[in-house]
Amino acid sequence: MNHPVVPQLRKDPIVDRWVLIAPERAERPTELEEPAHLAHHETCPFCEGRERETTPEVLAFRAPGSQPDGPGWKLRVVANRYPAVRGDAGGTPCTDKLFASHPGVGAHEVVVECPQHEASLAALPPDQFRLVFTAYRDRLKSLRDDERIAYAQVFKNHGVAAGASVEHAHSQILALSQAPHELRNEYDAAERYHRTHGRCVFCDLLGRERDAGVRMVSETEHVAAFAAFAGRFPYETWLLPIRHAGHYDRLSDAELTDAASVVRTILRRLGDLNEDAAYNYVLHTLPLRVAESPAYHWHLEILPRLTGIAGFELATGCFANPVPPEEAAARLRAGI
Amino acid sequence: MNHPVVPQLRKDPIVDRWVLIAPERAERPTELEEPAHLAHHETCPFCEGRERETTPEVLAFRAPGSQPDGPGWKLRVVANRYPAVRGDAGGTPCTDKLFASHPGVGAHEVVVECPQHEASLAALPPDQFRLVFTAYRDRLKSLRDDERIAYAQVFKNHGVAAGASVEHAHSQILALSQAPHELRNEYDAAERYHRTHGRCVFCDLLGRERDAGVRMVSETEHVAAFAAFAGRFPYETWLLPIRHAGHYDRLSDAELTDAASVVRTILRRLGDLNEDAAYNYVLHTLPLRVAESPAYHWHLEILPRLTGIAGFELATGCFANPVPPEEAAARLRAGI
Repeated sequence: MNHPVVPQLRKDPIVDRWVLIAPERAERPTELEEPAHLAHHETCPFCEGRERETTPEVLAFRAPGSQPDGPGWKLRVVANRYPAVRGDAGGTPCTDKLFASHPGVGAHEVVVECPQHEASLAALPPDQFRLVFTAYRDRLKSLRDDERIAYAQVFKNHGVAAGASVEHAHSQILALSQAPHELRNEYDAAERYHRTHGRCVFCDLLGRERDAGVRMVSETEHVAAFAAFAGRFPYETWLLPIRHAGHYDRLSDAELTDAASVVRTILRRLGDLNEDAAYNYVLHTLPLRVAESPAYHWHLEILPRLTGIAGFELATGCFANPVPPEEAAARLRAGI
Repeated sequence: MNHPVVPQLRKDPIVDRWVLIAPERAERPTELEEPAHLAHHETCPFCEGRERETTPEVLAFRAPGSQPDGPGWKLRVVANRYPAVRGDAGGTPCTDKLFASHPGVGAHEVVVECPQHEASLAALPPDQFRLVFTAYRDRLKSLRDDERIAYAQVFKNHGVAAGASVEHAHSQILALSQAPHELRNEYDAAERYHRTHGRCVFCDLLGRERDAGVRMVSETEHVAAFAAFAGRFPYETWLLPIRHAGHYDRLSDAELTDAASVVRTILRRLGDLNEDAAYNYVLHTLPLRVAESPAYHWHLEILPRLTGIAGFELATGCFANPVPPEEAAARLRAGI
């Protein structure tokens, strides 16, 4: 247990905080540590024509007649070559009162968002952008069939400041054997609210944001986006479906179209406000095999990385955000 | 409330996570975003001889006969010119079930760690290094007399990746009107452990780490340091006093000497392993006016910023660390 060669999840001895000890991640190339203007087009393993440099595809949107792991695709999903978790992670759970751990079982996938060497998801045309959100839906549906997986985290890192290590536009899905801490916190808080008020806290929040107006960024028939009241980062924006639903992967085609369109618009606007701003976005959805709940509502959090995470934030869990969310919303709206 | 011009703490509508909306922070210069080799010696407001460019000193270790806010000092503590919180933050607490907030009351101080333009605390000689840890002690003692302050967070950001915005070696003290979330979590977890096992979890942890040996980094008569079992970052190391004590600022002179010496050695070793590694360190101690507790033990967490905080970490609260703590400890020990 002391020298894991396979990924291992460990609990902090004091607080309920888990860490993934993932030695294989140390081997990945971090091309983005080099000057950011390097194109890397010549050696990019995600470009069309270099399919053999990735692991075999687990999903692809392809031209009719094209061959798996060959050219002719619009989007591919492949297993990460430097996985943070593994399907075959060995070892046994350890329930020691100070040194608790369990094997880092799961799947770690990369969504290659386009065939050409484009660094910015926001630069893709609407149809291509929509495929990315379709891929998330399809992969979550498939991962539900894997008994080892409880929760799949969809996330995107754009730019070095957001933790990206490869330039070619891509996002990731990290599927885990248990729902992670922050999600459990959120589910629990939403359940408590539902027990007290008999309503979904996200539905209520959306209603209040509409009434207040000052933090609203965009609303369509099927989705709404607003600057987060207590946003950790400047311009932090949350997107929700208007229809109450806990599982992202059960969204309708119309909801998918609207969600992709609004996220694309916000990312483009963010790039206008701060040239090539680094950002993450993260999907929060119910654990895969949990039934729909009246208490929980899936949402996507867009987290621009315009401020650092320094000692104060790490010590206290309290982020300092210099841009009031009402001001952020006004600036985001101005370009939409 | 919607457009705060003074700092405001806001609670996330869903989970127990507070954010500091601090518009004045947007105005600070971020010199470190320029190429890192710029010396900035010519304009540095923290250098000896430019005392008038900072706010008046609240503490200084000075040569006998030298004047406050003039030259002749070894270390100065001044109020931050771009404070995240203020003593006179206006507004009233709001207990709305979704939009809770309260005024960002507090103090934000900078500890200027040396008079000459030196970027690295670790490069300072032992006596000067010790003054830094003495300043933390003295400031915490003084802040205890301010009725508005409940908790003071001592932290250091070294390097751009750790959130530093000024090159000259410095650390910070951010004093708040309530103990922040992560600290409350830790106090609660320690209290629970104490109720169940009748012992301090940190004392037990130190005992277990000594027995195991694999994560020990250094031990003196008064302090011990070990790689954190579930370290969020490569080489994350915790330092504790061997004598059980909840309040950092009540440590003895001998404990202070040992703590400063061991932290200095670890930071230097870290710099050997990774050239000019960015790092934070953060002090965890009891709230200022809380009595000593058999459950809680002050400690300092050294957090090297050799891996980024990306979408996965922000979404899940689970950090991925590619260096097993046992390996980190072996490498840290090898140079000590």
